[in-house]
Amino acid sequence: MDTMRWSGGCLEILDQTLLPERVEYIKCRDYQTVCQAIRRLSVRGAPAIGAAAAYGLALGAFSLDTRDRRDFISALEKIAADLAATRPTAVNLQWALDRLLAAVKNSAAGDVAELKQKLLDEAHAIYREDLESNRRMGRFGQELVPDGAVILTHCNAGALATAGLGTALGVIRAARDAGKRVSVMADETRPLLQGARLTAWEMLQENIPVTLVADNMAGYAMALGKVDLVIVGADRIAANGDVANKIGSYSLAVLADAHGIPCYSAAPLSTVDLETKSGEDIVIEERPAEEVARPYGLEIAPPGMAVANPAFDVTPARLITAIVTDAGVARPPYEKSLAALFGRS
Amino acid sequence: MDTMRWSGGCLEILDQTLLPERVEYIKCRDYQTVCQAIRRLSVRGAPAIGAAAAYGLALGAFSLDTRDRRDFISALEKIAADLAATRPTAVNLQWALDRLLAAVKNSAAGDVAELKQKLLDEAHAIYREDLESNRRMGRFGQELVPDGAVILTHCNAGALATAGLGTALGVIRAARDAGKRVSVMADETRPLLQGARLTAWEMLQENIPVTLVADNMAGYAMALGKVDLVIVGADRIAANGDVANKIGSYSLAVLADAHGIPCYSAAPLSTVDLETKSGEDIVIEERPAEEVARPYGLEIAPPGMAVANPAFDVTPARLITAIVTDAGVARPPYEKSLAALFGRS
Repeated sequence: MDTMRWSGGCLEILDQTLLPERVEYIKCRDYQTVCQAIRRLSVRGAPAIGAAAAYGLALGAFSLDTRDRRDFISALEKIAADLAATRPTAVNLQWALDRLLAAVKNSAAGDVAELKQKLLDEAHAIYREDLESNRRMGRFGQELVPDGAVILTHCNAGALATAGLGTALGVIRAARDAGKRVSVMADETRPLLQGARLTAWEMLQENIPVTLVADNMAGYAMALGKVDLVIVGADRIAANGDVANKIGSYSLAVLADAHGIPCYSAAPLSTVDLETKSGEDIVIEERPAEEVARPYGLEIAPPGMAVANPAFDVTPARLITAIVTDAGVARPPYEKSLAALFGRS
Repeated sequence: MDTMRWSGGCLEILDQTLLPERVEYIKCRDYQTVCQAIRRLSVRGAPAIGAAAAYGLALGAFSLDTRDRRDFISALEKIAADLAATRPTAVNLQWALDRLLAAVKNSAAGDVAELKQKLLDEAHAIYREDLESNRRMGRFGQELVPDGAVILTHCNAGALATAGLGTALGVIRAARDAGKRVSVMADETRPLLQGARLTAWEMLQENIPVTLVADNMAGYAMALGKVDLVIVGADRIAANGDVANKIGSYSLAVLADAHGIPCYSAAPLSTVDLETKSGEDIVIEERPAEEVARPYGLEIAPPGMAVANPAFDVTPARLITAIVTDAGVARPPYEKSLAALFGRS
């Protein structure tokens, strides 16, 4: 199942809010529909958001009717700003938009039609490269997985969060493909239940044994010796190795540390933002109260209830055993190891 | 609102599964209906279960038509066994049944009708004493609450879990009544959402400021310095101070410890079981998978999903800063302090 697909000048986005009950694609013929799909989490997961935004910018470009290169770029930058504003935490969103804008600005082509095609080509490239990136991440990461491991994961860092395979789930798939017996414990991941709806579903489809738990059960499972390692994705990784990821990841890292269990984050280098020095510089998105208080429209809390709903948290680098990237595995100290993976050290 | 009430030979139990949307009482005219109400968590919370079971035993007694004292007691013991089997973890259930059985066995009355009345009187006494017990717990516990504290709590250890006021929430109420400005952060407490449905509702009714969070958000709130203390109830406390409580309490205690935040448990002495040496001896109830995978009948996970659903966990005594009881506050080492509260040291 494709997380998204380009078809006849239209970006079709799998509406993940309906999974696993219904498989429906949202047809985006303009960038505003892409913005909306990102904002309401029909498409989610840092790499998938990056690709969707890239296609969104291409869609926006096709709608511009100027033939003037400068006007075109100026309008493009406004569209990119709209797309970037949809969600603040995942850095791949900005990364993909910057990549497309740079491709246009660095292009020798003067013809706007050519530039439009260039944008679409670049969006295709981002999507295509992501799959290959996940494949590499899997190869590097699976070496960290012992045979017979029970792997706890949170949210969905799987095929549905990427162009395919996934980051954290890509590592799990690769471990299985390397002949290791692995099983998964999936946190349901309130409020939007990506663990229950998406991760559990992906693992079932792959015939990888998976047990669903409520988020508050993971710590006790660790105490009972039922978890061998924790692996999550990332929405942004700072230069010092601090990892922003789905809310609850921080608690898992503290719990893993308290139980002597390794805790990994898997993400492509496009998720590592060397401009972000530490987690303190990462903006955490606060999402609508209704996601917590009115899931599926159900009144699970009294009317007028005050709610906190941060979508992400930041895990300090000291709690992360290693970071699996598509360029290799980084170990502490991350300032050095991450920079080295970028070839900057 | 009464958690339960005795009216015209009938035990009316507030159906907490319908809160906060609907206020309905289940009319129990026989002990089987009480068993069912306990099993399906219409009534929950260790002290409330104890009281409900006591009334259930009285109801069962009234249905017996023997006039023979020995036959009567023998039938009563079978009913008590049925009631005790409804839920394995909360010790107040067995404690209340034992108290009623002892009252009958120790009674000089030979007349079965008198014994039946004795059982009902004893059930009334348990219910009445619980309110007073909560009042004392509040007085002792509120001294641990600093002015201005943000108090994180889990599940519902409130008026709805008891005959009134509550254990953990009783302490919060008492702190407010002592003139302290307090506010509450309530974990929603999956799978059955007692925090969202019951604790948030109780606090709103009391005009105590309360913010609802998903369970996986509490740790990050601690990291941000937004939590001053944690207080939870207990379903069983072992002689060494290990605390069995709603699943997720253990994780909160580990997280509180990692952040240097005090973590308290509040429970009457009837929840302390000196016969249970440590948490290892406590049976943890595993509840139906549907509670996690099919909340409100919604298909949030793929069909056929394997689920773990332990209703409780055990927090080791070393993570509990103090235990607030109706006989005073116990501090480590708990073997001594708890025994002292029973007047055994």
